[in-house]
Amino acid sequence: MISKCLSVNEQGNLTIGGADTVQLARKYGTPLIVYDEETIRNNCRMFRTSIEKHCSSGGLALYASKAFSCREIYRIINQEGLGADVVSGGELYTALSAGFPAEKIFFHGNNKTEAELQFALKNNVGRIVVDNLEELKLLNNIAKELVRTAKILLRIKPGIDAHTHEFIKTGQIDSKFGFALETGEAFTAVNTAAGFSNLELTGLHCHIGSQIFDIEPFCLAAKVMTSFIAEIKQKLGLVISELNLGGGYGIKYLGSDNPKEYPEFIECVAKTVEASCGELSIDVPKLFFEPGRSIVGPAAITLYTAGSVKTIPGIRTYVSVDGGMTDNPRYALYKSPYEIVVANKADKPRDFVATIAGKCCESGDLLQENAPIQNPEPGDIIAVLATGAYNYSMASNYNRIPRPAVVMVNCGEDRLIIKRETYEDLVRNDI
Amino acid sequence: MISKCLSVNEQGNLTIGGADTVQLARKYGTPLIVYDEETIRNNCRMFRTSIEKHCSSGGLALYASKAFSCREIYRIINQEGLGADVVSGGELYTALSAGFPAEKIFFHGNNKTEAELQFALKNNVGRIVVDNLEELKLLNNIAKELVRTAKILLRIKPGIDAHTHEFIKTGQIDSKFGFALETGEAFTAVNTAAGFSNLELTGLHCHIGSQIFDIEPFCLAAKVMTSFIAEIKQKLGLVISELNLGGGYGIKYLGSDNPKEYPEFIECVAKTVEASCGELSIDVPKLFFEPGRSIVGPAAITLYTAGSVKTIPGIRTYVSVDGGMTDNPRYALYKSPYEIVVANKADKPRDFVATIAGKCCESGDLLQENAPIQNPEPGDIIAVLATGAYNYSMASNYNRIPRPAVVMVNCGEDRLIIKRETYEDLVRNDI
Repeated sequence: MISKCLSVNEQGNLTIGGADTVQLARKYGTPLIVYDEETIRNNCRMFRTSIEKHCSSGGLALYASKAFSCREIYRIINQEGLGADVVSGGELYTALSAGFPAEKIFFHGNNKTEAELQFALKNNVGRIVVDNLEELKLLNNIAKELVRTAKILLRIKPGIDAHTHEFIKTGQIDSKFGFALETGEAFTAVNTAAGFSNLELTGLHCHIGSQIFDIEPFCLAAKVMTSFIAEIKQKLGLVISELNLGGGYGIKYLGSDNPKEYPEFIECVAKTVEASCGELSIDVPKLFFEPGRSIVGPAAITLYTAGSVKTIPGIRTYVSVDGGMTDNPRYALYKSPYEIVVANKADKPRDFVATIAGKCCESGDLLQENAPIQNPEPGDIIAVLATGAYNYSMASNYNRIPRPAVVMVNCGEDRLIIKRETYEDLVRNDI
Repeated sequence: MISKCLSVNEQGNLTIGGADTVQLARKYGTPLIVYDEETIRNNCRMFRTSIEKHCSSGGLALYASKAFSCREIYRIINQEGLGADVVSGGELYTALSAGFPAEKIFFHGNNKTEAELQFALKNNVGRIVVDNLEELKLLNNIAKELVRTAKILLRIKPGIDAHTHEFIKTGQIDSKFGFALETGEAFTAVNTAAGFSNLELTGLHCHIGSQIFDIEPFCLAAKVMTSFIAEIKQKLGLVISELNLGGGYGIKYLGSDNPKEYPEFIECVAKTVEASCGELSIDVPKLFFEPGRSIVGPAAITLYTAGSVKTIPGIRTYVSVDGGMTDNPRYALYKSPYEIVVANKADKPRDFVATIAGKCCESGDLLQENAPIQNPEPGDIIAVLATGAYNYSMASNYNRIPRPAVVMVNCGEDRLIIKRETYEDLVRNDI
């Protein structure tokens, strides 16, 4: 199995965190998203202990909550001592309403609204990661009005394309996010920020991409960023004490995926920063990482009930399930790969090839094409694995399909963490 | 302008249905979706009068409500005398809760659940469009339990690829929807349905694709379906009295799009059916059409406020707005084209080229790349045109961004039809 929390019990059923998925489907109905708490907590601890061990000036993992944002996940993340990265007023509101400490929240976004910035400052959010010059001015004005100083990071485009390992002119520089390094825009932004009375520039941030398996591009980005910190110190006499290297480290979606373990990743990157700072004669900054997918992605599965099984002779077999692109739009958006298991036949070989279709009235509503699964029949419980990140968070009510319930399991015990939407919920805002 | 409801007023502002969009943005905030009621009603009337004029055995346009489903739209559609096509229990619930007459509702879907079928039958839905053999059996059992007869249509794959105008083996036959004609599956389904005591087979349904500008493939499909009706009469002695030719007729998204008018479309298709029935010596069936996009698509626009305007020298200018793929995922999903206007500069030439980015923390969150617009500045009101179909209905809370408000205008008067989501709404189901 692609995740340690998954196994097969004596009845031949798929289990997650010791809980029988067929029983969970019966108890809560389908579609159902099931998270294993132990996996989430273990992932948090791996990041935390690795950072404590390898980052000589300290550091913190900030959970990138856009991967999965709800009250319960912020409680768990907080208990594990991590910070959180939020990207909207809505995520910030959710975190605060779950009692998440504001000072451990970093607020991101390429186009934060004035209302969002006011909301963040009034609630004493730890850091605001400023994306552009308009925001810099706007934030300074808001901070002035509120008679406070906003601690900020600047989002920098380090000019690295993570998938080619090369510094390229288009690619990373052609992004809606952040200040470009090579055009001098980033330096201007630092200089401008330093001149604002109600802003305190504590650090820099970068993010090079998503679902990247290699450590090298992260190390490259770390070198580029430390060089820029040295340049700032030399030219402006400013000390940048925080370096946030973002997220994007890959997870295992398929059995054939083989990412290195997180501790090795943190160690490599931290050592690179340290060596680079040594060469440049600057103090090692406090390091921040923003794991989202790698904390929650492998921790969940989605359970569906198979409806029609339609074989088109010589072409393919469609297995239609009672969810689809409404609860998991990643295949429709990116053709994302997923492993799929017939949960009530998990002990059988996956020697059948099927296309798993959703129930939306849309041809593109597929969860996976030509996936190896156990021989499917109507009524089977179909499990899609590693659906913990960017599934519930991207869910829609397309076709007015209610969003699924979300359950947390821990050592065989289950509890509801997000209620299933009802038909009443769907018309709540309709006049 | 691509839609008759759009114009420019003396202040140089874009208007929709006589209402100043800049004032609407100020009154309701942004992002905001604005529909023009007159356009919707006119489109309904065009379909209704064309069907009355050209369909000798009668017919009905069924609004394909997946394009935009909310209480108010069902009220308007009902007032205009149309039926509705729903694709889920949620759409059916919404329609019924708006007082839509159940007998004028057709229920579609490739994987209706048992609960949905029960809900539909208990509420005396007009027709159920059965997709597969499992559903046929399940529906008959449910109808038997409820001691009633369900009136059904069968969804047929006519084997037409609308974009090539050819009968091809893969393509339409390789679909999760319906019964294939050329494999004999459709004929078996008719025979099976006829044998079920609690089902009454009144008609056949097909749907050949979406956003199709040519009338010819629709006429081809009509011929294929009438031939099948003749075959059924000849071989089984069964009279199929209803033919539902689905939706998919294209609308104008860009100035360069040039779809024929709906009346011409209905006339061509109806004449084809009539001629074909004459040749085959069968009675002309009652005809149904399912326009969704063509009723609501051109009737709406989305208004955003521009935040940062970021020019990357030699590459492009990004204009970030306060919405994005959360309220309109069609560019992220299909690279759909849209025309974009700076609403407060609508009298100025569109001589600037910009990429319109959303506020989501996702590189792919773009609304349009390299679009001609008026010279953009922070604070401008950005209008995306023809967003009435598959925008609000596909909206998500990704990044925990609340869904926008929706307003209806009519001859300069505006009223709220869907309330803006609040932060409280976002956590309503969180435990």
